[in-house]
Amino acid sequence: MDITAIAKNFTEFYYSQFALGRLNLAPLYRPHSMMTWEGKQFQGGANIVQHLNELPFEKVAHKISTFDAQPSSLDMSTLLISVTGLLRVDGDQELQFSQVFVLAKEGESFYVLNDMFRLNLG
Amino acid sequence: MDITAIAKNFTEFYYSQFALGRLNLAPLYRPHSMMTWEGKQFQGGANIVQHLNELPFEKVAHKISTFDAQPSSLDMSTLLISVTGLLRVDGDQELQFSQVFVLAKEGESFYVLNDMFRLNLG
Repeated sequence: MDITAIAKNFTEFYYSQFALGRLNLAPLYRPHSMMTWEGKQFQGGANIVQHLNELPFEKVAHKISTFDAQPSSLDMSTLLISVTGLLRVDGDQELQFSQVFVLAKEGESFYVLNDMFRLNLG
Repeated sequence: MDITAIAKNFTEFYYSQFALGRLNLAPLYRPHSMMTWEGKQFQGGANIVQHLNELPFEKVAHKISTFDAQPSSLDMSTLLISVTGLLRVDGDQELQFSQVFVLAKEGESFYVLNDMFRLNLG
């Protein structure tokens, strides 16, 4: 199993769908999935996607600066991804972001078990 | 179990020992632990701590800007931590950093299963 390829495919899919329509991200989460967005915690796909959809911007583009992935369990059933980059919303200036995901295996695919997002680092 | 308290205690211990002497960090890792440091992968406590110890600076101080923690398994056996902040080495200018840890439970304590570090974000 090529961890890096899975992680890259996931990340590209996540940010492209985030731009196209944040509600598209719902199928990536499960009822026990957790997201911490700028310090606020949300649990479950419905709550997570509702929060993402209510964020006060229309256009959004992520530009990835650093990307790392590791298996996070001996049986490769979970996968850790760390991304940093620049985010531009509605034509405003670019903001730095950091986002971390843990993906968990379910059959032949992965869902998002953990999701943490921060803007304006340092 | 207070995830946030465990994560905060770990993070404070890690950065204080990193400053005091990086070799002190060896007991935090196990043979299957992985570290990705600026994109380079290391496995096992001995390799990880050797790399940290060879980093070309003497004095180092981390200042934490953002800190997030979540359980990363239903049975609370693993714990995800994301930190961003500023790093100053040998009196040079501050650099931004992002670091992610997965801690895994072993008896009554935790060891570092995953560790990812990046400097100079965005």
